[in-house]
Amino acid sequence: VKKIINAPADIVVDALRGMAAAHPEELRVQTDPAFVARSDAPVTDKVAVVSGGGSGHEPLHVGFVGPGMLDAAVPGPVFTSPTPDAVQAAVGKADSGAGTLLVVKNYTGDVLNFETAAELVEASGVGTRTVVVQDDVAVQDSTNTAGRRGVGGTVLLEKIVGAAAERGDDLATCHEIAERVSANVRSMGMALTAPTVPHVGEPSFTLADYEMEIGIGIHGEPGRERVELESADRVVRRLLDPVLEDLPFREGDEVLLFTNSMGGTPGTELYLAHGIAERLLADRGVRVTRRLVGPYITSLEMQGMSLTLLKLDDELRNLWDAPVRTPALTW
Amino acid sequence: VKKIINAPADIVVDALRGMAAAHPEELRVQTDPAFVARSDAPVTDKVAVVSGGGSGHEPLHVGFVGPGMLDAAVPGPVFTSPTPDAVQAAVGKADSGAGTLLVVKNYTGDVLNFETAAELVEASGVGTRTVVVQDDVAVQDSTNTAGRRGVGGTVLLEKIVGAAAERGDDLATCHEIAERVSANVRSMGMALTAPTVPHVGEPSFTLADYEMEIGIGIHGEPGRERVELESADRVVRRLLDPVLEDLPFREGDEVLLFTNSMGGTPGTELYLAHGIAERLLADRGVRVTRRLVGPYITSLEMQGMSLTLLKLDDELRNLWDAPVRTPALTW
Repeated sequence: VKKIINAPADIVVDALRGMAAAHPEELRVQTDPAFVARSDAPVTDKVAVVSGGGSGHEPLHVGFVGPGMLDAAVPGPVFTSPTPDAVQAAVGKADSGAGTLLVVKNYTGDVLNFETAAELVEASGVGTRTVVVQDDVAVQDSTNTAGRRGVGGTVLLEKIVGAAAERGDDLATCHEIAERVSANVRSMGMALTAPTVPHVGEPSFTLADYEMEIGIGIHGEPGRERVELESADRVVRRLLDPVLEDLPFREGDEVLLFTNSMGGTPGTELYLAHGIAERLLADRGVRVTRRLVGPYITSLEMQGMSLTLLKLDDELRNLWDAPVRTPALTW
Repeated sequence: VKKIINAPADIVVDALRGMAAAHPEELRVQTDPAFVARSDAPVTDKVAVVSGGGSGHEPLHVGFVGPGMLDAAVPGPVFTSPTPDAVQAAVGKADSGAGTLLVVKNYTGDVLNFETAAELVEASGVGTRTVVVQDDVAVQDSTNTAGRRGVGGTVLLEKIVGAAAERGDDLATCHEIAERVSANVRSMGMALTAPTVPHVGEPSFTLADYEMEIGIGIHGEPGRERVELESADRVVRRLLDPVLEDLPFREGDEVLLFTNSMGGTPGTELYLAHGIAERLLADRGVRVTRRLVGPYITSLEMQGMSLTLLKLDDELRNLWDAPVRTPALTW
């Protein structure tokens, strides 16, 4: 398999060792069970924000650990949920006594394992709330998902609720803000190529040279349809229209537009697509006031992109603008 | 060709429009001739730092425009040098009267066109100095290059000299610092897959499923050798040993280690490789005190990586640590 790795079974731990070496002052990295925490965790009197999920979507979640975003992140094996004991260990490191908000993407394994972890930590006296992100409008139910999948909206939610926790909001308020983001965010993605899971060694699915998959998930789950390649103008419209119709986003709405690379799509193509989305939104009278463009929730080396729209209000905008300092997102 | 684009000939301009939309307050983007400048350029009494080169290496250079780094960047067509008149226009926008430092990667077309541009702007009364980055230890002479190619060291140089200009160093001092970085930085890269130039439509070269290319350039130029796939441990050693021997870097030296993705190599693999490099350097007694890990100088969607080592002194370290605020690099 064409990857820069040693033993496929060791990838996550090997990558975590590299993260630890790269960010010796900012992060504390533990490998058994595996989690990444802010070096100053637990932060006194602050609600902890903890997320996690299968690896292979980097920088989500481990790259978002730091002041203003996550207190800890729990990476499972590639495309596989982390175990409850790993989540429990991360919460144990992150919780200051002010309670922990768990941010979970809606995949059956993640939901189940975070639920079990929440029971375990509640039993030890830690207060928790959970938000389940389910922003992907492409399909209802999917491989390993009941309901909608959690995708790009997770990045925005982690940034915003991270800022709320950092300014001192209590657990109930953080949870309310997280649910508000979740209620106002919608996404859809597409792929030109398939990712290859290291320990599998074969592409997760097959696309012909002239094909792309619209509405794909971040683990290569099937989308809405497989169609012939089209211009970027049409691709962007195929993603944006269902997102707009779903909430719905209306003329006059203020939004954050997040144009995400699935990993293998380079910067030129991503900015090109972003520009098209901005024009289409301007045509509809939807006001883009904040943007994020880059590979922030990926599917290994998959070529493709996703669009995420978040309807903003004054508080969400201010929380988005608040300082953040993590390996992958800093301002 | 499997890319998110409209007409291949319009890619660079279409991507610039997206950049302009994404960073309306930070950047001024012009499309004919094409360049990107800080929105506050020219900055009074500050030496301007201007770079450029073929597109397809993003975020280099356009993603590094902003306070503490570049005043302007000039993107040519994909893998093709920008024209002298575009460089001239960018300098015209960026120069405050304090002079302009031109940062050029060592490719024959870039060197020639920046030289012509320098003559044109000098004739109009703008003082210029030029630094030519040539940090790639893989090969002497290459496709379209006499001498060594300019690669990852360019990113570090632009950050450091950008900080020198920002603190008010004059043109001669900026030039001296740039030459000092250039003299102390070495790189080498490898590829698992080939990039596809949009208007060509075919991969730039062919690698078998079991092959990788060691010492490759960022335009798919041939490297030192084509070998069978190996473990990450061996791949990292293949890149690091020639880099270490070249300067040479010695026991006790303080260095910045830059582990770069060529585009398609995802975060897990990159951090994994970074961790190996840190261990090998520690074994040699080379002290890594600063790090950069990510896709900062790419070759479209090529899978692969490069390692860059910069020998630090107190001044270079302080300039590296100085604030920077650009689309791709912020602290």
